[in-house]
Amino acid sequence: MDKRVLLIAGSKSDSEFVNRCEEYLDKLGIGYNTEYSSAHRDPERTSQLAREAEKSGYEVIICLAGMSAALPGVVAAHTALPVIGVPLDSSALNGMDALLSVVQMPPGIPVATVAVGKPGAANAAILAARILSIKYDDIRGNLDKYRESIKQK
Amino acid sequence: MDKRVLLIAGSKSDSEFVNRCEEYLDKLGIGYNTEYSSAHRDPERTSQLAREAEKSGYEVIICLAGMSAALPGVVAAHTALPVIGVPLDSSALNGMDALLSVVQMPPGIPVATVAVGKPGAANAAILAARILSIKYDDIRGNLDKYRESIKQK
Amino acid sequence: MDKRVLLIAGSKSDSEFVNRCEEYLDKLGIGYNTEYSSAHRDPERTSQLAREAEKSGYEVIICLAGMSAALPGVVAAHTALPVIGVPLDSSALNGMDALLSVVQMPPGIPVATVAVGKPGAANAAILAARILSIKYDDIRGNLDKYRESIKQK
Amino acid sequence: MDKRVLLIAGSKSDSEFVNRCEEYLDKLGIGYNTEYSSAHRDPERTSQLAREAEKSGYEVIICLAGMSAALPGVVAAHTALPVIGVPLDSSALNGMDALLSVVQMPPGIPVATVAVGKPGAANAAILAARILSIKYDDIRGNLDKYRESIKQK
Amino acid sequence: MDKRVLLIAGSKSDSEFVNRCEEYLDKLGIGYNTEYSSAHRDPERTSQLAREAEKSGYEVIICLAGMSAALPGVVAAHTALPVIGVPLDSSALNGMDALLSVVQMPPGIPVATVAVGKPGAANAAILAARILSIKYDDIRGNLDKYRESIKQK
Amino acid sequence: MDKRVLLIAGSKSDSEFVNRCEEYLDKLGIGYNTEYSSAHRDPERTSQLAREAEKSGYEVIICLAGMSAALPGVVAAHTALPVIGVPLDSSALNGMDALLSVVQMPPGIPVATVAVGKPGAANAAILAARILSIKYDDIRGNLDKYRESIKQK
Amino acid sequence: MDKRVLLIAGSKSDSEFVNRCEEYLDKLGIGYNTEYSSAHRDPERTSQLAREAEKSGYEVIICLAGMSAALPGVVAAHTALPVIGVPLDSSALNGMDALLSVVQMPPGIPVATVAVGKPGAANAAILAARILSIKYDDIRGNLDKYRESIKQK
Amino acid sequence: MDKRVLLIAGSKSDSEFVNRCEEYLDKLGIGYNTEYSSAHRDPERTSQLAREAEKSGYEVIICLAGMSAALPGVVAAHTALPVIGVPLDSSALNGMDALLSVVQMPPGIPVATVAVGKPGAANAAILAARILSIKYDDIRGNLDKYRESIKQK
Repeated sequence: MDKRVLLIAGSKSDSEFVNRCEEYLDKLGIGYNTEYSSAHRDPERTSQLAREAEKSGYEVIICLAGMSAALPGVVAAHTALPVIGVPLDSSALNGMDALLSVVQMPPGIPVATVAVGKPGAANAAILAARILSIKYDDIRGNLDKYRESIKQK
Repeated sequence: MDKRVLLIAGSKSDSEFVNRCEEYLDKLGIGYNTEYSSAHRDPERTSQLAREAEKSGYEVIICLAGMSAALPGVVAAHTALPVIGVPLDSSALNGMDALLSVVQMPPGIPVATVAVGKPGAANAAILAARILSIKYDDIRGNLDKYRESIKQK
Repeated sequence: MDKRVLLIAGSKSDSEFVNRCEEYLDKLGIGYNTEYSSAHRDPERTSQLAREAEKSGYEVIICLAGMSAALPGVVAAHTALPVIGVPLDSSALNGMDALLSVVQMPPGIPVATVAVGKPGAANAAILAARILSIKYDDIRGNLDKYRESIKQK
Repeated sequence: MDKRVLLIAGSKSDSEFVNRCEEYLDKLGIGYNTEYSSAHRDPERTSQLAREAEKSGYEVIICLAGMSAALPGVVAAHTALPVIGVPLDSSALNGMDALLSVVQMPPGIPVATVAVGKPGAANAAILAARILSIKYDDIRGNLDKYRESIKQK
Repeated sequence: MDKRVLLIAGSKSDSEFVNRCEEYLDKLGIGYNTEYSSAHRDPERTSQLAREAEKSGYEVIICLAGMSAALPGVVAAHTALPVIGVPLDSSALNGMDALLSVVQMPPGIPVATVAVGKPGAANAAILAARILSIKYDDIRGNLDKYRESIKQK
Repeated sequence: MDKRVLLIAGSKSDSEFVNRCEEYLDKLGIGYNTEYSSAHRDPERTSQLAREAEKSGYEVIICLAGMSAALPGVVAAHTALPVIGVPLDSSALNGMDALLSVVQMPPGIPVATVAVGKPGAANAAILAARILSIKYDDIRGNLDKYRESIKQK
Repeated sequence: MDKRVLLIAGSKSDSEFVNRCEEYLDKLGIGYNTEYSSAHRDPERTSQLAREAEKSGYEVIICLAGMSAALPGVVAAHTALPVIGVPLDSSALNGMDALLSVVQMPPGIPVATVAVGKPGAANAAILAARILSIKYDDIRGNLDKYRESIKQK
Repeated sequence: MDKRVLLIAGSKSDSEFVNRCEEYLDKLGIGYNTEYSSAHRDPERTSQLAREAEKSGYEVIICLAGMSAALPGVVAAHTALPVIGVPLDSSALNGMDALLSVVQMPPGIPVATVAVGKPGAANAAILAARILSIKYDDIRGNLDKYRESIKQK
């Protein structure tokens, strides 16, 4: 399966959110690789991951980060691919810090922001499926099946 | 030029934000149509616009709304296309109401949320360009030129 | 007993809040039916429930929802009945997201919003009783007894 | 025309909001009287207005107040009629103070809260029309006409 | 010992906060009585407590309440005595609702607001001691001893 | 007229709030002196004002401050007199910074906090009148007259 | 080892945050002393600690405090040394109160504010290392080693 | 005069804040250079400025940015120098977005955050003076004179 999504999280301590996202990517039949790289603690590696994502064949990048969640914006600054940001509720401020850091990008460099925490981690995968579906019929097929399944819940 | 983006705003009073978004879509060479349709005041028409968007040839939908900004979520509920939501600061609460309404979508139906107000209206167009660029080389070319131009500012 | 209230919750995971509301409707002698239907995951069924509520004999609709709580507003968009909205604290943001989504309705389509979470679930039932009391003397009698009882607490 | 709605505002300085509400009550063909009475500066008169509202023939009470907006809750405490609360943005905190004061009623005494400020003042009138429509066909007719008119906007 | 402070809480469920306040009143040698009376569920009794407080010999009133905490403001509306308000964190919104409801009193009727929750319950007693100390030397003596004791901590 | 109230503001730029407070102190017949002294820029003078207030004959201290409004708490730390704090909306954050700084005092050193900005400046004077009224009949007389006057508004 | 950092916390109950900071100061090879002194409960001792810090040889002061966290600002008012403030999440308001109290210092007296709670306690030590590194090569060496180590995580 | 401070702002539109900071650096006799470089629109140049700052002789970096203010954190990630961050109120959310983005840095990479907007721009310069004063006596002399001058205001 082609790896179309690059998943980056800022810290190993975010793995429960990463797992939720991976679970939905699997469910939607989307290939992906996961990397842990902090925008603040390892900026060179993070920039490199972002800059090389496209030639590595990725078409969407999902970034998960908490607190002053610079990761999605920094990655978006180094690539032309669509970047989805998941703000995590991993600090005293319940994720409001991460939400505002991820969504309030200045004009020029957008991040496609989804909900705070686990619901957002799931939705990031589904949003990736919606984006990839404009190009790949198989992913669209999986997305349609998923969308049908949640109606019957 | 093919119309790949459907732009929907909840109210004619949001036109200054719509104009900002259109200006960036033009700059990026992306064809679009603009509709005004309220999720709350005219729900049937809004659902219909969402349901017919795909067969009309649109590949991305941008929704702008203020206050209890249900528009992007309602549209996303009726289509499998990627939906970008722009929360508007058109109430006493400075757009915090619209931001939380747009971004906090429940698992299953994501909205790609961008910044509150005019910066978000610009970024919605650029995010649409990033998404369409995974499929259309001409849009990618325009996006690259735009990205280069903001560096020289 | 006539079913005068239609109770709709967005998700089965909201059942503890639904139970609190049902307990108060029972206490006030008000007949009701409960449905689970998500505004985002199953929009057609939700609209249909809203559109048919009146001819099914309901006179008040209570909607409970968390996060980007579009349910009450979407239901209100499809009916002329009074709609009571209960914002739930089921996300990282403690219900502030749901509160602003439910209460900040644009001019034209009001939702009668009550408190966040369980106190609101109880109050939705009591508010339904106040509304129905303008027409039904038996419900008014029950409401008066209830109001007397809480004084003696 | 029967006066079915009692409109109470906490202060003469809130008159621009009162006017907006009256304009919509007129448009919907609902008779009303307006009183200015502060829950804090003139509590006896306020309680009396609330206690006598029902025998004066009113069926819905609308209360507008800013800051620590106790008025709707205090009125609801003294009557069994449905009380609609409009939180006003008349302080440094943009109406967030009034919103939380009006909506966060403890279990037992609900206030039907609408949006902050002018949109809420309009919606209070429309919510009153929805409530009265369960009993009065003429008001329902007016409401239907109004709802149709906003679709064509 | 003369009962100089009247302590009113809105609900029996607030007793842990009441106990904290009583503990500090005891420590400071201030006589008091405690009443439970809700501004919303039993407004007549609450008003009466407030109106009779002064002739009963009380000189300061302390009110504790959560959510839409109208109690301190309603009591202040019915008495000329200084009223101290303690906002309680007893809802989903962490006491921000109670804080804004208690402190944002309109011009004319002030409430002396202290911190949210238990620290505020302690400080309400100490503030009462500061107020009573302008008149009673024995309370001032106790206050001085208390103030000295916390330095040595 | 005896000077019973010491009024301290952190900055000359707060004079419009100081004037509001003075206007109400005049109206209530309470003597006062006004000082400008910053807790942060001139801490020694501020502490000295606080420590000497009591022997100078003051019985209540009113402090007005914006931003990280340490003034009321610092003054309360150096005196046993009741200290009233007025949080000012003089920064980008609309006074929420000052409100939390003033009201959230730790156990041991309370500040009697009133509303943000001009309404609070007025209420600080009235709260001072309520406190002084437990001791001075003439101030109580003035307070009663004032309270009567606002009813007739 | 020279003691270059003075660490002050407002309350013994903050010791878990103090320990985190000390752990990082140890890791970075920075000598320090820790004092507990409340700006509000023991203002004289707090001012004295601040005033004497420089002649005692300290070059950076770290202050940790919760609620209305006046400690860092009060210390900064009494010294010309750089003061780092750590807002603690020790109240109902999740540290938002402490954050705004610490960071929103008026022009003239800055506090170098770091993140709320434990992450901030760690970062205060690292910020002290960055500041001291402009003068001391050994601390710079330790800082470089630490910065390298977090990359390899 | 040696240039010890590097001042970076994210956008030319922030120049009024930059000017305020420069005015205070001048007043304190601190040499500086100012660069405009966006962390999001021109990440390579921003990283390079940060990486080369130290060998260019700078000892403190001041970064000003609004919205999702990644600039200070990104710069801090690429240098071991102390970085001061000024959150700007240049969006609909009054600077709360920038404040949380700047201050809530994850453990490992601190940013010394000052107040939102113009007061923060002034304080950034003064904080730089405090930091440089641990090494340079002439700056300390200027700082002492400045601190004395604000007492006499």
